[in-house]
Amino acid sequence: MNKTIGIFGGGQLGRMMAQAALPLNIQCTFFEANTDCPSAALGQVFSTKAENGLNEFIESADVFSLEFENTPLADVDVLTQSKAIHPPRQALATAQNRLLEKALFDKLDIPVAPYRAVDSLESLKQAVADLGLPIVLKTATGGYDGKGQFVLRTADQIDQAWAELGPAKSLIAESFVTFSREVSIIAVRGLDGEVKTWPLAENHHHNGILSHSIVPAPNSADLQPVAQDYITRLLNHLNYVGVLTLELFVTDKGLYANEMAPRVHNSGHWSIEGSVCSQFENHVRAVAGLPLGSTEVVRPTVMINIIGKHPKTEDVLALNGAHLHLYNKTERAGRKLGHITLMPVNQSELVLLCRQLAKILPEPLALSEDMNI
Amino acid sequence: MNKTIGIFGGGQLGRMMAQAALPLNIQCTFFEANTDCPSAALGQVFSTKAENGLNEFIESADVFSLEFENTPLADVDVLTQSKAIHPPRQALATAQNRLLEKALFDKLDIPVAPYRAVDSLESLKQAVADLGLPIVLKTATGGYDGKGQFVLRTADQIDQAWAELGPAKSLIAESFVTFSREVSIIAVRGLDGEVKTWPLAENHHHNGILSHSIVPAPNSADLQPVAQDYITRLLNHLNYVGVLTLELFVTDKGLYANEMAPRVHNSGHWSIEGSVCSQFENHVRAVAGLPLGSTEVVRPTVMINIIGKHPKTEDVLALNGAHLHLYNKTERAGRKLGHITLMPVNQSELVLLCRQLAKILPEPLALSEDMNI
Repeated sequence: MNKTIGIFGGGQLGRMMAQAALPLNIQCTFFEANTDCPSAALGQVFSTKAENGLNEFIESADVFSLEFENTPLADVDVLTQSKAIHPPRQALATAQNRLLEKALFDKLDIPVAPYRAVDSLESLKQAVADLGLPIVLKTATGGYDGKGQFVLRTADQIDQAWAELGPAKSLIAESFVTFSREVSIIAVRGLDGEVKTWPLAENHHHNGILSHSIVPAPNSADLQPVAQDYITRLLNHLNYVGVLTLELFVTDKGLYANEMAPRVHNSGHWSIEGSVCSQFENHVRAVAGLPLGSTEVVRPTVMINIIGKHPKTEDVLALNGAHLHLYNKTERAGRKLGHITLMPVNQSELVLLCRQLAKILPEPLALSEDMNI
Repeated sequence: MNKTIGIFGGGQLGRMMAQAALPLNIQCTFFEANTDCPSAALGQVFSTKAENGLNEFIESADVFSLEFENTPLADVDVLTQSKAIHPPRQALATAQNRLLEKALFDKLDIPVAPYRAVDSLESLKQAVADLGLPIVLKTATGGYDGKGQFVLRTADQIDQAWAELGPAKSLIAESFVTFSREVSIIAVRGLDGEVKTWPLAENHHHNGILSHSIVPAPNSADLQPVAQDYITRLLNHLNYVGVLTLELFVTDKGLYANEMAPRVHNSGHWSIEGSVCSQFENHVRAVAGLPLGSTEVVRPTVMINIIGKHPKTEDVLALNGAHLHLYNKTERAGRKLGHITLMPVNQSELVLLCRQLAKILPEPLALSEDMNI
């Protein structure tokens, strides 16, 4: 076999995909601005800045995928003239545009918070009138980890919000959903249409960036089949191949879809140790046309992001059962530098380990009182 | 931190060490005759054939280890003029010479089959007189996987045995031990002297090559503390740092040491998925001076070697819970090309999976009637 998979992007997601691909004798190549990226340790990086970079990248592999959800559609269109990419272009295009995404959720009867398209100050005012306040105003394209958003709480903020985000031209106004917690479901679909789903992750954020995920999400037995149903609708409708992530809000009225990511996801990093087959290996298997692996949970896990500053490696590894995954990135405020997986044997060890970890992380872990650990 | 570990050898053991090192931001380099070796995907390979290869290899890393137990002591002696190697030279020298090895077992009160040093036809005859027949005659140095051995069953084979192995000059004659099965214990010792042990593996051979290992070895509760005691004596006596393997025979009179390997071992490959921290990661942690990880078993496993010919990847991955590890080697009779880890949920799934696997492996799996599955 010995296929090569070309991956758009070269960050930590590509790095972990390539790590999973290696034991299957599958080599990865990457397409990324900076050739000194986290994936570089595992395969050749073709620079997006090089004159003939895209063509050389297309030449370098048999089948393609992505780890960067803002992969330019224009590049994908050049690629698909000669080679295949998984997931499909439509999934990527939809995920890159919040209005298309919400429309797809609507079409598939996946509940979402009420929303309106906004492309003028007038339509923003109309949205406020229709939806009430507060609302979240977002650019339809671009933006991540809380950037490109404006939370509108009072009508006198309308002009400011428009001034800030209006230049993006295409915006979405969403009702502010009251939710008790955020969860995500990750699933993989094979080339033959087989779908496998991991259990829900409960996700905790700090300053708009994922801080940690608990898997399986506590008290999620009723939510799991609903979430599985939603993501399966998306996968089948899109004729999707590979890993897809769906972020959901847990509300009084049930699950509301927040957004989807057409790729492996930070809230699935736990699966490297916690699941029989990880999101990375299953994505590689799907893209290479191989049978999917079991998504069964080996042991409940907590995944904690390392953000901004590195802890001491020896401090992390001294924690019982801790796994450390560093991405070979330099320190910068708000940057994801690595993650830690804990596999406690029970609830009391989980609490103990999280407290120990909170002491050794340079950046505070969002161990708030309401954290369900 | 960001240490680099230089590894003597560049085979699949080095490849899997480097895979385990990567998430810790530890880079590996290798010293190997063939620069197109299994480890090459993960770090620079310095050729043992290059004029200045050894010096360049020594320059390339901060601390050193090995994956090839026949690493020349002369090379280690050049290295240790400027840099450290784990495990220690003495462990390597002992493991390279069966007479030194048996003497060490004797010294530490670790039972071994009766043996005699043989360096002449006369001393061979004396050994036969002392030990009785059958005996196994082996070269004191060199030989692996059943090569460099002669099984002497009758006295009229003495001349033939001497003609075949005599030129090696230093031989060992060992009583033929009657054993019910072969097991191995693997342990790791940290720079601070901490020792952690994995459970016993039960090892099955086919044509003198490891075919598969079952972990934990069935019915080994009584054997485990004894084996742990033996390997701990070795580790502490040698002031060992890293992973050590001890192969043992289960006999009517208890455990007899067969041989030790001063390195990660084929019978420990199961630990990648089956243990909280694998033999590869723990070896890397020890060599880098980091705290050791938990050797707790996540789930019982069976590890099956892929020998000589590759099965179809899709056939292997279609088995529930199967993990495939390929070494990027070309096919050759008797060559270890990869391994498969099965993690059955119970005994009946284990039997089922092994039968399915036996059908898809090109080379027969030694699924004899006496296999304790």
